[in-house]
Amino acid sequence: MSFDARKFRDLDPGQRVLMGPGPSDVPPRVLQAMSAPCIGHLDPYFLETMNETQELLRYLFQTKNALTIPVSGTGSAGMETCFVNLIEPGDEVVVCVNGVFGTRMSDIVNRLGGKLIRVDEQWGRAVNANKVKDAIKGKNPKVLAVVHAETSTGACTPLEDLSSIAKEVGALFLVDMVTSLGGMEVAIDKTGIDAAYSGTQKCISCPPGLSPISFSDKAMEALKNRKSHVVSWYLDMSMVASYWGAERKYHHTAPINMIYALREALRIIAEEGLEARWTRHKLNHKALVAGIETMGLEMLVPESERLPMLNTIKIPDGVDDVKVRKALLKDFGLEIGGGLGDLAGKVWRVGLMGHAARPKNVFLFLSALETILRAEGVKINPGALDAAAEVYAS
Amino acid sequence: MSFDARKFRDLDPGQRVLMGPGPSDVPPRVLQAMSAPCIGHLDPYFLETMNETQELLRYLFQTKNALTIPVSGTGSAGMETCFVNLIEPGDEVVVCVNGVFGTRMSDIVNRLGGKLIRVDEQWGRAVNANKVKDAIKGKNPKVLAVVHAETSTGACTPLEDLSSIAKEVGALFLVDMVTSLGGMEVAIDKTGIDAAYSGTQKCISCPPGLSPISFSDKAMEALKNRKSHVVSWYLDMSMVASYWGAERKYHHTAPINMIYALREALRIIAEEGLEARWTRHKLNHKALVAGIETMGLEMLVPESERLPMLNTIKIPDGVDDVKVRKALLKDFGLEIGGGLGDLAGKVWRVGLMGHAARPKNVFLFLSALETILRAEGVKINPGALDAAAEVYAS
Repeated sequence: MSFDARKFRDLDPGQRVLMGPGPSDVPPRVLQAMSAPCIGHLDPYFLETMNETQELLRYLFQTKNALTIPVSGTGSAGMETCFVNLIEPGDEVVVCVNGVFGTRMSDIVNRLGGKLIRVDEQWGRAVNANKVKDAIKGKNPKVLAVVHAETSTGACTPLEDLSSIAKEVGALFLVDMVTSLGGMEVAIDKTGIDAAYSGTQKCISCPPGLSPISFSDKAMEALKNRKSHVVSWYLDMSMVASYWGAERKYHHTAPINMIYALREALRIIAEEGLEARWTRHKLNHKALVAGIETMGLEMLVPESERLPMLNTIKIPDGVDDVKVRKALLKDFGLEIGGGLGDLAGKVWRVGLMGHAARPKNVFLFLSALETILRAEGVKINPGALDAAAEVYAS
Repeated sequence: MSFDARKFRDLDPGQRVLMGPGPSDVPPRVLQAMSAPCIGHLDPYFLETMNETQELLRYLFQTKNALTIPVSGTGSAGMETCFVNLIEPGDEVVVCVNGVFGTRMSDIVNRLGGKLIRVDEQWGRAVNANKVKDAIKGKNPKVLAVVHAETSTGACTPLEDLSSIAKEVGALFLVDMVTSLGGMEVAIDKTGIDAAYSGTQKCISCPPGLSPISFSDKAMEALKNRKSHVVSWYLDMSMVASYWGAERKYHHTAPINMIYALREALRIIAEEGLEARWTRHKLNHKALVAGIETMGLEMLVPESERLPMLNTIKIPDGVDDVKVRKALLKDFGLEIGGGLGDLAGKVWRVGLMGHAARPKNVFLFLSALETILRAEGVKINPGALDAAAEVYAS
């Protein structure tokens, strides 16, 4: 078989500033840890690394849950893990849908033969707990699922009321924390969350590839009391838990180097401290919004429902979405995201996630966007950078 | 939440020699590529990286199959991907079982509601095609599945006869290439294989975390003609193929840096050339066996059925398996594997995979094993290193 290997050049992705919906910028320390020599998945040093990773994840998730581990797949694998382990065919499942990721949850519930009780909310708004209460009347759901931070819209749904509703009907409370974890409070134990999953590539600032999850004792009990097999062998938490637990029973080969990276990213978070990290995300968000609104642009989400780490800006009438994003990438090395689904072409999604949530990125984005929009002939009010600077000064 | 971040020390796994059943040693070039800056999963440079990775994978799999991609999970995720996409509840599925990984296939078929036709073979032996022919009589299987290289035993099952049997009954031929790919011929197109999966951490010499798979047109047709949904959203190849194909439709966030690593590992393979690589694996295997047999130890698998990259050595009577492996790791930084299932405590599994299949590792292992066994009071015949050297010299 003849094949010209020389046509493939050395990898050189350059250096972007990642301000899209994820992946976000990865600190050099994390990349360096990831490239440490690979060792065996039962090597004593690696087992210790697993323990530390779990301890750091529990801190980040604000939980004591024993089953707190990174699933060997990206965030969507974490979503699938929660549903495939906790529901059985015929189970009633409430899914709150206010964007792409709630829609994805519904799809998964249908594939698994769950009886879907779907509660729709306008995209760009928080889920209304009263609607959920109404939809649930007379039902007996096993799970109530919601996306904490809808990455597709930038809306944040508060978890307390939904947690109470789940408790009232005896349902497991399942929360998507893909975008919120590491950027705002999630408080699994305090809020009474039974299952949660996230991704490494958002506010944890680690490359994509793993999905941290956490199951409460109640969720573990539900898993133990299943009548049917978990349909996925790969994501069956009763077996995966044996490898991460005291037994150390081989299940599948762990993604060693990705776990090195995650441990280092979590260590950086612990060094900063959760509260300081949340405050930093809020501050940079405020500065970005101040700049955007001073320019005369509008945010999609009402102020009280905005996520700090994912900012959705309405694209001004007549402006070419793709052209602007291409110019940001080409002229400034800056990536932001476009809209998904009904919001395609209508919004830009600007991430301020983890390592990337800092003033220099806020100023770069505001400067770059203003420059490109002016070149496109869009009328932009002056003073965006001053407005952002004022937020930092106050 | 108070938490002492300082107790977590800098990551320092040291430098092992990985001669177990995988992961295997990763070349520095691969680790370096993996630590390049993370970029977006729809970034033009990354899309080009995906194309190149596919082209290199097609070379390695010896196929023209369009759907040839790395699944975003480890080898077992690849196994699950093949079954979950290709079988539906009630489908008859033949699984050949001669070790742990055939057993795992059976488990997955059962979970998916397939009608399992299980053909058992002695562990440590190749699957007997006649047994499969007999078991299949009067049946109408949709899939015939076999493990090419049983990592749990070191036995190699030839694929040609089984491929013919599958064709005779109109079944899809599904092959586990986790341990064989990159270390011996697999020849998907020539042999008529419809679905294959592998892992990155064996003879590809990349860290674990991805599972290269390839589907033939016939497999894609079967996927298109399903009557039921693929039960896994994450592994649904009809959607994943859209992201890897011309549409570039977002499905889940690709594990960017792992794909950097895979591309580099594949580039190294292409530079060496497949034939040269297979020859190298065979040569080092022969040298290892010459040394082992000269010592007076025995191989588990008959000579004609042995894998070059996974060598199963019978543990001499009275020797403490775990004590020897611990000494290898502690005194020589060398990892080998123990037996699984019925073979636990009875065999050692010694990998010569990819980057690790070289004379210096063969000599290190023979020297280390001899030293430790002698210290344990085992009678060892002299001349093992000479015997290995002679293989290299001839």
